[in-house]
Amino acid sequence: MQKDNTDGRTRKFRIELQYMGTNYSGWQIQPYQTTIQETLSNGLSHLAGKRISVTGASRTDSGVHALQQVAHFEFPEKDSIPDLQKSLNAVLPWDIRATSISEAEPGFHARKWATRKRYEYHFYTGEVFPPFLHNLALHLSPGFDEKAAAEAASSLVGTHDFTSFTGSGTSVIDKVRTVSVSRFKPKGDQLIYRIEANGFLLHMVRNIVGTLMEAGRGKISPGAIPSILESLDRSKAGPTAPPHGLFLAKIWY
Amino acid sequence: MQKDNTDGRTRKFRIELQYMGTNYSGWQIQPYQTTIQETLSNGLSHLAGKRISVTGASRTDSGVHALQQVAHFEFPEKDSIPDLQKSLNAVLPWDIRATSISEAEPGFHARKWATRKRYEYHFYTGEVFPPFLHNLALHLSPGFDEKAAAEAASSLVGTHDFTSFTGSGTSVIDKVRTVSVSRFKPKGDQLIYRIEANGFLLHMVRNIVGTLMEAGRGKISPGAIPSILESLDRSKAGPTAPPHGLFLAKIWY
Repeated sequence: MQKDNTDGRTRKFRIELQYMGTNYSGWQIQPYQTTIQETLSNGLSHLAGKRISVTGASRTDSGVHALQQVAHFEFPEKDSIPDLQKSLNAVLPWDIRATSISEAEPGFHARKWATRKRYEYHFYTGEVFPPFLHNLALHLSPGFDEKAAAEAASSLVGTHDFTSFTGSGTSVIDKVRTVSVSRFKPKGDQLIYRIEANGFLLHMVRNIVGTLMEAGRGKISPGAIPSILESLDRSKAGPTAPPHGLFLAKIWY
Repeated sequence: MQKDNTDGRTRKFRIELQYMGTNYSGWQIQPYQTTIQETLSNGLSHLAGKRISVTGASRTDSGVHALQQVAHFEFPEKDSIPDLQKSLNAVLPWDIRATSISEAEPGFHARKWATRKRYEYHFYTGEVFPPFLHNLALHLSPGFDEKAAAEAASSLVGTHDFTSFTGSGTSVIDKVRTVSVSRFKPKGDQLIYRIEANGFLLHMVRNIVGTLMEAGRGKISPGAIPSILESLDRSKAGPTAPPHGLFLAKIWY
Protein backbone atom coordinates (compact mmCIF):
# COMPACT_ATOMS: atom_id res chain seq x y z
CA MET A 1 0.00 0.00 0.00
CA GLN A 2 1.10 3.54 -0.76
CA LYS A 3 2.42 5.49 2.22
CA ASP A 4 0.47 8.62 3.10
CA ASN A 5 3.44 10.93 3.25
CA THR A 6 5.42 9.94 0.16
CA ASP A 7 4.54 13.05 -1.83
CA GLY A 8 4.76 15.84 0.67
CA ARG A 9 3.59 17.33 3.89
CA THR A 10 0.28 16.71 5.58
CA ARG A 11 -1.89 18.73 7.94
CA LYS A 12 -3.54 17.11 10.93
CA PHE A 13 -7.27 17.68 11.43
CA ARG A 14 -9.64 17.12 14.30
CA ILE A 15 -13.13 16.09 13.23
CA GLU A 16 -16.32 15.94 15.30
CA LEU A 17 -19.05 13.54 14.20
CA GLN A 18 -22.64 12.62 14.83
CA TYR A 19 -23.90 9.24 13.73
CA MET A 20 -26.83 6.90 13.95
CA GLY A 21 -25.17 3.53 14.49
CA THR A 22 -28.09 1.30 13.44
CA ASN A 23 -26.73 0.44 9.99
CA TYR A 24 -23.11 -0.09 11.09
CA SER A 25 -21.05 -2.79 12.77
CA GLY A 26 -19.68 -0.20 15.19
CA TRP A 27 -16.80 2.25 14.83
CA GLN A 28 -13.81 0.01 14.32
CA ILE A 29 -12.75 -1.25 10.86
CA GLN A 30 -13.37 -5.02 10.53
CA PRO A 31 -13.14 -7.27 7.50
CA TYR A 32 -16.44 -7.89 5.66
CA GLN A 33 -18.33 -5.37 7.82
CA THR A 34 -19.54 -1.83 7.18
CA THR A 35 -18.21 0.36 9.99
CA ILE A 36 -18.25 4.07 10.80
CA GLN A 37 -14.45 4.33 10.73
CA GLU A 38 -14.24 2.70 7.31
CA THR A 39 -17.09 4.77 5.83
CA LEU A 40 -15.50 7.98 7.11
CA SER A 41 -12.08 6.90 5.86
CA ASN A 42 -13.56 6.09 2.43
CA GLY A 43 -15.19 9.53 2.23
CA LEU A 44 -11.95 11.36 3.07
CA SER A 45 -9.96 9.10 0.75
CA HIS A 46 -12.35 9.90 -2.09
CA LEU A 47 -11.78 13.63 -1.56
CA ALA A 48 -7.98 13.31 -1.20
CA GLY A 49 -7.52 10.89 -4.09
CA LYS A 50 -5.46 8.66 -1.79
CA ARG A 51 -5.95 6.54 1.32
CA ILE A 52 -6.71 8.60 4.48
CA SER A 53 -6.85 6.78 7.83
CA VAL A 54 -8.84 8.08 10.79
CA THR A 55 -8.30 7.45 14.50
CA GLY A 56 -11.32 7.78 16.77
CA ALA A 57 -11.60 8.65 20.45
CA SER A 58 -13.99 5.77 21.25
CA ARG A 59 -14.68 2.42 19.62
CA THR A 60 -18.46 2.41 19.82
CA ASP A 61 -20.19 -0.99 19.51
CA SER A 62 -22.42 -2.12 16.68
CA GLY A 63 -25.73 -0.21 16.80
CA VAL A 64 -24.46 2.45 19.25
CA HIS A 65 -24.97 6.10 18.26
CA ALA A 66 -22.88 9.24 18.71
CA LEU A 67 -24.00 12.75 19.53
CA GLN A 68 -20.30 13.65 19.53
CA GLN A 69 -17.48 11.40 18.47
CA VAL A 70 -14.01 12.91 17.89
CA ALA A 71 -11.36 11.62 15.49
CA HIS A 72 -8.15 12.82 13.87
CA PHE A 73 -6.64 12.30 10.46
CA GLU A 74 -3.85 13.65 8.28
CA PHE A 75 -4.70 15.21 4.96
CA PRO A 76 -2.14 16.04 2.20
CA GLU A 77 -1.34 19.74 2.25
CA LYS A 78 -1.29 19.92 -1.54
CA ASP A 79 -4.82 18.44 -1.72
CA SER A 80 -6.26 21.09 0.61
CA ILE A 81 -10.01 21.60 0.12
CA PRO A 82 -11.63 24.98 0.89
CA ASP A 83 -14.70 23.64 2.67
CA LEU A 84 -13.66 20.14 3.70
CA GLN A 85 -16.62 19.67 6.09
CA LYS A 86 -19.21 20.47 3.42
CA SER A 87 -17.45 18.35 0.82
CA LEU A 88 -17.18 15.43 3.23
CA ASN A 89 -20.85 15.59 4.25
CA ALA A 90 -21.76 15.58 0.57
CA VAL A 91 -20.04 12.21 0.08
CA LEU A 92 -20.94 10.60 3.45
CA PRO A 93 -24.25 8.75 3.88
CA TRP A 94 -27.01 10.63 5.78
CA ASP A 95 -26.43 8.66 9.01
CA ILE A 96 -22.86 9.95 9.50
CA ARG A 97 -22.36 13.74 9.73
CA ALA A 98 -19.22 15.79 10.24
CA THR A 99 -20.35 18.53 12.62
CA SER A 100 -16.98 20.30 12.66
CA ILE A 101 -13.50 19.97 11.17
CA SER A 102 -10.60 22.09 12.35
CA GLU A 103 -6.83 21.96 12.16
CA ALA A 104 -5.50 20.06 15.18
CA GLU A 105 -2.73 21.07 17.56
CA PRO A 106 0.62 19.38 16.81
CA GLY A 107 0.66 15.89 18.31
CA PHE A 108 -3.10 15.81 18.90
CA HIS A 109 -4.43 12.25 19.33
CA ALA A 110 -8.22 11.82 19.55
CA ARG A 111 -8.04 8.84 21.92
CA LYS A 112 -4.87 9.48 23.93
CA TRP A 113 -5.55 13.15 24.61
CA ALA A 114 -9.13 12.59 25.83
CA THR A 115 -9.47 13.38 29.54
CA ARG A 116 -13.17 12.62 30.07
CA LYS A 117 -16.05 11.09 28.14
CA ARG A 118 -19.81 11.13 28.57
CA TYR A 119 -22.19 8.38 27.50
CA GLU A 120 -25.97 8.54 27.65
CA TYR A 121 -28.46 5.70 27.66
CA HIS A 122 -31.97 6.66 26.50
CA PHE A 123 -35.09 4.93 27.83
CA TYR A 124 -38.72 5.45 26.90
CA THR A 125 -41.04 5.12 29.89
CA GLY A 126 -44.49 5.72 28.33
CA GLU A 127 -46.91 2.91 27.57
CA VAL A 128 -46.70 2.79 23.76
CA PHE A 129 -43.26 3.12 22.17
CA PRO A 130 -43.28 5.99 19.61
CA PRO A 131 -42.22 5.02 16.06
CA PHE A 132 -40.02 8.14 15.99
CA LEU A 133 -37.70 6.64 18.65
CA HIS A 134 -37.20 3.36 16.77
CA ASN A 135 -33.62 2.15 17.39
CA LEU A 136 -32.96 5.28 19.49
CA ALA A 137 -34.22 4.28 22.95
CA LEU A 138 -35.05 1.22 25.02
CA HIS A 139 -38.64 0.70 26.14
CA LEU A 140 -38.81 0.34 29.92
CA SER A 141 -41.64 -1.93 31.00
CA PRO A 142 -44.07 -0.52 33.61
CA GLY A 143 -43.16 -0.91 37.27
CA PHE A 144 -39.54 0.19 36.82
CA ASP A 145 -38.40 1.72 40.11
CA GLU A 146 -36.51 4.85 39.03
CA LYS A 147 -35.53 5.68 42.61
CA ALA A 148 -33.87 2.30 43.18
CA ALA A 149 -32.04 2.56 39.83
CA ALA A 150 -30.90 6.11 40.73
CA GLU A 151 -29.60 4.95 44.11
CA ALA A 152 -27.63 2.12 42.47
CA ALA A 153 -26.31 4.57 39.84
CA SER A 154 -25.00 7.02 42.43
CA SER A 155 -22.84 4.37 44.11
CA LEU A 156 -20.76 4.02 40.91
CA VAL A 157 -19.28 7.51 41.35
CA GLY A 158 -15.63 7.40 42.43
CA THR A 159 -12.46 5.53 41.53
CA HIS A 160 -13.08 1.79 41.21
CA ASP A 161 -11.76 -1.33 39.54
CA PHE A 162 -14.47 -2.03 36.93
CA THR A 163 -13.52 -5.67 36.20
CA SER A 164 -17.06 -6.78 37.17
CA PHE A 165 -18.50 -4.55 34.44
CA THR A 166 -15.98 -5.36 31.69
CA GLY A 167 -16.72 -7.63 28.73
CA SER A 168 -14.38 -10.54 28.16
CA GLY A 169 -12.02 -10.21 25.23
CA THR A 170 -10.35 -6.98 26.24
CA SER A 171 -6.56 -6.83 26.44
CA VAL A 172 -6.61 -3.87 28.82
CA ILE A 173 -4.86 -4.73 32.10
CA ASP A 174 -5.59 -1.72 34.30
CA LYS A 175 -9.34 -1.71 34.86
CA VAL A 176 -9.41 1.16 37.35
CA ARG A 177 -11.47 4.13 36.14
CA THR A 178 -12.84 7.26 37.82
CA VAL A 179 -16.53 7.92 37.34
CA SER A 180 -17.48 11.57 37.99
CA VAL A 181 -21.17 11.51 37.00
CA SER A 182 -23.67 8.63 37.15
CA ARG A 183 -27.31 9.69 37.31
CA PHE A 184 -30.78 9.39 35.78
CA LYS A 185 -32.69 12.41 34.51
CA PRO A 186 -36.33 12.30 33.36
CA LYS A 187 -37.12 14.23 30.15
CA GLY A 188 -40.84 14.04 29.39
CA ASP A 189 -41.66 10.40 28.65
CA GLN A 190 -37.96 9.62 28.38
CA LEU A 191 -35.44 8.75 31.05
CA ILE A 192 -31.79 9.53 30.33
CA TYR A 193 -28.96 7.80 32.17
CA ARG A 194 -25.75 9.82 32.01
CA ILE A 195 -22.30 8.57 32.94
CA GLU A 196 -19.00 10.45 32.75
CA ALA A 197 -15.57 8.96 33.41
CA ASN A 198 -11.92 9.44 32.55
CA GLY A 199 -12.19 6.28 30.43
CA PHE A 200 -14.45 3.32 29.71
CA LEU A 201 -13.73 -0.40 29.29
CA LEU A 202 -15.20 -2.83 26.74
CA HIS A 203 -19.03 -2.95 27.15
CA MET A 204 -18.66 -1.12 30.49
CA VAL A 205 -21.59 1.28 30.00
CA ARG A 206 -23.93 -1.41 28.65
CA ASN A 207 -23.01 -3.75 31.52
CA ILE A 208 -23.59 -0.97 34.04
CA VAL A 209 -26.96 -0.11 32.44
CA GLY A 210 -28.00 -3.78 32.46
CA THR A 211 -27.16 -3.90 36.16
CA LEU A 212 -28.99 -0.65 36.97
CA MET A 213 -32.03 -2.06 35.16
CA GLU A 214 -31.93 -5.08 37.48
CA ALA A 215 -31.96 -2.66 40.42
CA GLY A 216 -34.94 -0.83 38.88
CA ARG A 217 -36.76 -4.12 38.44
CA GLY A 218 -36.06 -5.26 42.00
CA LYS A 219 -33.88 -8.17 40.91
CA ILE A 220 -30.92 -6.82 42.91
CA SER A 221 -30.82 -4.43 45.84
CA PRO A 222 -29.86 -0.82 44.96
CA GLY A 223 -27.19 -1.16 47.66
CA ALA A 224 -25.53 -4.12 45.92
CA ILE A 225 -23.24 -2.10 43.62
CA PRO A 226 -20.25 -1.76 46.03
CA SER A 227 -20.09 -5.54 46.61
CA ILE A 228 -20.44 -6.19 42.84
CA LEU A 229 -17.51 -3.81 42.24
CA GLU A 230 -15.42 -5.45 44.99
CA SER A 231 -16.08 -8.98 43.68
CA LEU A 232 -14.07 -8.28 40.47
CA ASP A 233 -16.35 -10.91 38.96
CA ARG A 234 -18.31 -10.22 35.73
CA SER A 235 -20.91 -12.85 36.65
CA LYS A 236 -22.00 -10.82 39.70
CA ALA A 237 -23.20 -7.86 37.56
CA GLY A 238 -26.29 -7.76 35.33
CA PRO A 239 -26.61 -8.56 31.64
CA THR A 240 -25.33 -6.32 28.84
CA ALA A 241 -28.01 -3.75 27.89
CA PRO A 242 -28.85 -3.65 24.16
CA PRO A 243 -26.79 -1.19 22.08
CA HIS A 244 -29.57 0.87 20.49
CA GLY A 245 -30.28 3.02 23.57
CA LEU A 246 -26.62 4.04 23.94
CA PHE A 247 -25.11 7.34 22.74
CA LEU A 248 -21.51 8.50 22.95
CA ALA A 249 -22.40 12.06 23.99
CA LYS A 250 -19.31 14.18 24.64
CA ILE A 251 -15.53 14.02 24.84
CA TRP A 252 -13.35 16.46 26.75
CA TYR A 253 -9.68 17.27 26.05
CA MET B 1 -66.47 -10.99 -0.19
CA GLN B 2 -68.09 -11.98 3.10
CA LYS B 3 -70.21 -9.27 4.73
CA ASP B 4 -68.99 -8.09 8.13
CA ASN B 5 -72.30 -8.46 9.92
CA THR B 6 -73.61 -11.79 8.65
CA ASP B 7 -72.97 -13.63 11.90
CA GLY B 8 -74.07 -11.21 14.57
CA ARG B 9 -73.67 -7.85 16.19
CA THR B 10 -70.60 -5.65 16.11
CA ARG B 11 -69.21 -3.01 18.43
CA LYS B 12 -67.83 0.26 17.09
CA PHE B 13 -64.38 1.34 18.25
CA ARG B 14 -62.44 4.57 18.09
CA ILE B 15 -58.70 4.10 17.64
CA GLU B 16 -55.91 6.66 18.00
CA LEU B 17 -52.70 6.06 16.09
CA GLN B 18 -49.13 7.29 15.78
CA TYR B 19 -47.19 6.46 12.67
CA MET B 20 -43.99 7.22 10.82
CA GLY B 21 -45.15 7.55 7.23
CA THR B 22 -41.78 7.03 5.52
CA ASN B 23 -42.39 3.43 4.47
CA TYR B 24 -46.01 3.93 3.35
CA SER B 25 -47.85 5.31 0.32
CA GLY B 26 -49.99 7.42 2.63
CA TRP B 27 -53.15 6.56 4.58
CA GLN B 28 -55.62 5.60 1.87
CA ILE B 29 -55.87 2.04 0.49
CA GLN B 30 -54.59 1.89 -3.11
CA PRO B 31 -53.95 -1.09 -5.37
CA TYR B 32 -50.35 -2.35 -5.41
CA GLN B 33 -49.26 0.03 -2.62
CA THR B 34 -48.56 -0.48 1.06
CA THR B 35 -50.66 2.04 2.99
CA ILE B 36 -51.38 2.77 6.65
CA GLN B 37 -55.10 2.08 6.28
CA GLU B 38 -54.48 -1.31 4.65
CA THR B 39 -51.81 -2.33 7.19
CA LEU B 40 -54.10 -1.39 10.08
CA SER B 41 -57.04 -3.17 8.46
CA ASN B 42 -54.90 -6.29 7.93
CA GLY B 43 -53.85 -6.29 11.59
CA LEU B 44 -57.43 -6.03 12.85
CA SER B 45 -58.64 -8.61 10.31
CA HIS B 46 -55.96 -11.02 11.50
CA LEU B 47 -57.22 -10.66 15.08
CA ALA B 48 -60.91 -10.93 14.14
CA GLY B 49 -60.48 -13.78 11.69
CA LYS B 50 -62.53 -11.84 9.15
CA ARG B 51 -62.20 -8.63 7.13
CA ILE B 52 -62.31 -5.44 9.25
CA SER B 53 -62.43 -2.06 7.46
CA VAL B 54 -61.18 1.15 9.05
CA THR B 55 -62.20 4.75 8.32
CA GLY B 56 -59.68 7.45 9.13
CA ALA B 57 -60.15 11.12 9.99
CA SER B 58 -57.49 12.36 7.55
CA ARG B 59 -56.01 10.93 4.37
CA THR B 60 -52.36 11.75 4.98
CA ASP B 61 -50.07 11.78 1.91
CA SER B 62 -47.26 9.37 1.20
CA GLY B 63 -44.37 10.01 3.62
CA VAL B 64 -46.44 12.16 6.01
CA HIS B 65 -46.39 11.19 9.70
CA ALA B 66 -49.00 11.23 12.45
CA LEU B 67 -48.61 12.14 16.10
CA GLN B 68 -52.35 11.53 16.38
CA GLN B 69 -54.58 10.07 13.69
CA VAL B 70 -58.09 8.90 14.62
CA ALA B 71 -60.07 6.13 12.92
CA HIS B 72 -63.12 3.99 13.59
CA PHE B 73 -63.96 0.37 12.85
CA GLU B 74 -66.55 -2.25 13.74
CA PHE B 75 -65.42 -5.43 15.43
CA PRO B 76 -67.58 -8.57 15.86
CA GLU B 77 -68.98 -8.71 19.38
CA LYS B 78 -68.44 -12.45 19.57
CA ASP B 79 -64.72 -12.05 18.72
CA SER B 80 -64.14 -9.57 21.52
CA ILE B 81 -60.49 -9.46 22.65
CA PRO B 82 -59.59 -8.50 26.24
CA ASP B 83 -56.67 -6.22 25.41
CA LEU B 84 -57.30 -5.31 21.78
CA GLN B 85 -54.73 -2.46 21.79
CA LYS B 86 -51.91 -4.67 23.02
CA SER B 87 -52.85 -7.50 20.65
CA LEU B 88 -53.03 -5.11 17.72
CA ASN B 89 -49.65 -3.51 18.49
CA ALA B 90 -48.15 -6.99 18.64
CA VAL B 91 -49.19 -7.68 15.03
CA LEU B 92 -48.62 -4.19 13.58
CA PRO B 93 -45.16 -3.18 12.31
CA TRP B 94 -43.11 -0.88 14.59
CA ASP B 95 -43.86 2.23 12.53
CA ILE B 96 -47.63 2.11 13.22
CA ARG B 97 -48.77 2.18 16.86
CA ALA B 98 -52.24 2.14 18.38
CA THR B 99 -51.97 4.62 21.26
CA SER B 100 -55.56 4.08 22.44
CA ILE B 101 -58.64 2.05 21.55
CA SER B 102 -62.01 2.70 23.15
CA GLU B 103 -65.63 1.90 22.40
CA ALA B 104 -67.11 4.71 20.28
CA GLU B 105 -70.37 6.58 20.79
CA PRO B 106 -73.21 5.33 18.57
CA GLY B 107 -72.93 6.86 15.11
CA PHE B 108 -69.35 8.07 15.65
CA HIS B 109 -67.54 8.78 12.37
CA ALA B 110 -63.82 9.63 12.57
CA ARG B 111 -63.90 11.98 9.58
CA LYS B 112 -67.41 13.45 9.66
CA TRP B 113 -67.43 14.17 13.40
CA ALA B 114 -64.06 15.95 13.44
CA THR B 115 -64.47 19.65 14.24
CA ARG B 116 -60.85 20.80 14.10
CA LYS B 117 -57.46 19.39 13.08
CA ARG B 118 -53.89 20.41 13.74
CA TYR B 119 -50.95 19.80 11.44
CA GLU B 120 -47.32 20.58 12.20
CA TYR B 121 -44.43 21.03 9.82
CA HIS B 122 -40.99 20.44 11.35
CA PHE B 123 -37.89 22.28 10.15
CA TYR B 124 -34.30 21.94 11.27
CA THR B 125 -32.47 25.29 11.31
CA GLY B 126 -28.96 24.29 12.46
CA GLU B 127 -26.02 24.00 10.11
CA VAL B 128 -25.59 20.20 9.95
CA PHE B 129 -28.74 18.06 9.73
CA PRO B 130 -28.76 15.47 12.57
CA PRO B 131 -29.06 11.82 11.46
CA PHE B 132 -31.68 11.33 14.18
CA LEU B 133 -34.14 13.61 12.32
CA HIS B 134 -33.78 11.74 9.02
CA ASN B 135 -37.17 11.81 7.23
CA LEU B 136 -38.67 13.71 10.20
CA ALA B 137 -37.84 17.35 9.40
CA LEU B 138 -36.87 19.58 6.50
CA HIS B 139 -33.47 21.29 6.57
CA LEU B 140 -33.86 25.05 6.21
CA SER B 141 -30.91 26.63 4.46
CA PRO B 142 -29.20 29.58 6.22
CA GLY B 143 -30.62 33.03 5.64
CA PHE B 144 -34.24 31.99 6.14
CA ASP B 145 -36.14 35.04 7.44
CA GLU B 146 -38.32 33.58 10.22
CA LYS B 147 -39.99 36.94 10.85
CA ALA B 148 -41.14 37.28 7.24
CA ALA B 149 -42.43 33.69 7.23
CA ALA B 150 -44.27 34.32 10.53
CA GLU B 151 -45.89 37.47 9.15
CA ALA B 152 -47.07 35.58 6.05
CA ALA B 153 -48.33 32.73 8.27
CA SER B 154 -50.43 35.03 10.44
CA SER B 155 -52.37 36.39 7.48
CA LEU B 156 -53.82 32.91 6.80
CA VAL B 157 -55.88 33.02 10.00
CA GLY B 158 -59.60 33.48 9.30
CA THR B 159 -62.23 32.12 6.92
CA HIS B 160 -60.98 32.00 3.33
CA ASP B 161 -61.47 30.21 0.05
CA PHE B 162 -58.29 28.09 -0.17
CA THR B 163 -58.51 27.30 -3.92
CA SER B 164 -55.03 28.84 -4.43
CA PHE B 165 -53.57 26.32 -1.99
CA THR B 166 -55.41 23.22 -3.18
CA GLY B 167 -53.85 20.48 -5.29
CA SER B 168 -55.57 19.61 -8.56
CA GLY B 169 -57.45 16.33 -8.62
CA THR B 170 -59.76 16.99 -5.69
CA SER B 171 -63.51 16.58 -6.18
CA VAL B 172 -64.32 18.87 -3.23
CA ILE B 173 -66.41 21.85 -4.41
CA ASP B 174 -66.55 24.06 -1.30
CA LYS B 175 -63.00 25.21 -0.69
CA VAL B 176 -63.80 27.62 2.14
CA ARG B 177 -62.09 26.70 5.40
CA THR B 178 -61.55 28.49 8.71
CA VAL B 179 -57.96 28.61 9.98
CA SER B 180 -57.76 29.33 13.72
CA VAL B 181 -54.00 28.97 14.29
CA SER B 182 -51.11 29.57 11.86
CA ARG B 183 -47.78 30.29 13.49
CA PHE B 184 -44.11 29.35 13.80
CA LYS B 185 -42.53 28.35 17.08
CA PRO B 186 -38.79 27.79 17.59
CA LYS B 187 -37.80 24.72 19.63
CA GLY B 188 -34.03 24.57 20.05
CA ASP B 189 -32.52 24.07 16.61
CA GLN B 190 -35.95 23.20 15.23
CA LEU B 191 -38.69 25.44 13.95
CA ILE B 192 -42.27 24.13 14.12
CA TYR B 193 -45.03 25.53 11.93
CA ARG B 194 -48.47 24.80 13.40
CA ILE B 195 -51.77 25.20 11.60
CA GLU B 196 -55.25 24.43 12.91
CA ALA B 197 -58.45 24.58 10.88
CA ASN B 198 -61.96 23.11 10.74
CA GLY B 199 -60.83 21.15 7.69
CA PHE B 200 -58.03 20.85 5.14
CA LEU B 201 -58.05 20.38 1.36
CA LEU B 202 -55.80 18.16 -0.76
CA HIS B 203 -52.13 19.20 -0.28
CA MET B 204 -53.32 22.38 1.46
CA VAL B 205 -50.78 22.33 4.31
CA ARG B 206 -47.86 21.42 2.04
CA ASN B 207 -48.82 24.17 -0.43
CA ILE B 208 -49.13 26.68 2.41
CA VAL B 209 -45.73 25.63 3.82
CA GLY B 210 -44.13 25.89 0.36
CA THR B 211 -45.52 29.42 0.08
CA LEU B 212 -44.40 30.44 3.58
CA MET B 213 -40.91 29.18 2.70
CA GLU B 214 -40.89 31.52 -0.30
CA ALA B 215 -41.75 34.37 2.07
CA GLY B 216 -38.89 33.29 4.37
CA ARG B 217 -36.51 33.23 1.42
CA GLY B 218 -37.60 36.65 0.16
CA LYS B 219 -39.05 35.28 -3.07
CA ILE B 220 -42.46 36.74 -2.24
CA SER B 221 -43.45 39.57 0.09
CA PRO B 222 -44.81 38.45 3.49
CA GLY B 223 -47.79 40.70 2.70
CA ALA B 224 -48.64 38.80 -0.49
CA ILE B 225 -50.84 36.11 1.14
CA PRO B 226 -54.18 37.99 0.97
CA SER B 227 -53.83 38.61 -2.78
CA ILE B 228 -52.76 34.96 -3.34
CA LEU B 229 -55.92 33.85 -1.48
CA GLU B 230 -58.11 36.25 -3.47
CA SER B 231 -56.69 35.15 -6.82
CA LEU B 232 -58.24 31.64 -6.43
CA ASP B 233 -55.32 30.57 -8.64
CA ARG B 234 -53.01 27.68 -7.61
CA SER B 235 -50.21 29.08 -9.78
CA LYS B 236 -49.97 32.21 -7.61
CA ALA B 237 -48.95 30.23 -4.50
CA GLY B 238 -45.59 28.53 -3.87
CA PRO B 239 -44.54 24.95 -4.57
CA THR B 240 -45.72 21.94 -2.56
CA ALA B 241 -43.36 21.37 0.41
CA PRO B 242 -41.97 17.82 0.69
CA PRO B 243 -44.04 15.40 2.79
CA HIS B 244 -41.40 14.24 5.28
CA GLY B 245 -41.57 17.35 7.51
CA LEU B 246 -45.36 17.09 7.90
CA PHE B 247 -47.17 15.60 10.92
CA LEU B 248 -50.89 15.20 11.47
CA ALA B 249 -50.78 16.31 15.11
CA LYS B 250 -54.23 16.42 16.70
CA ILE B 251 -57.92 15.99 15.91
CA TRP B 252 -60.77 17.48 17.94
CA TYR B 253 -64.35 16.18 18.14
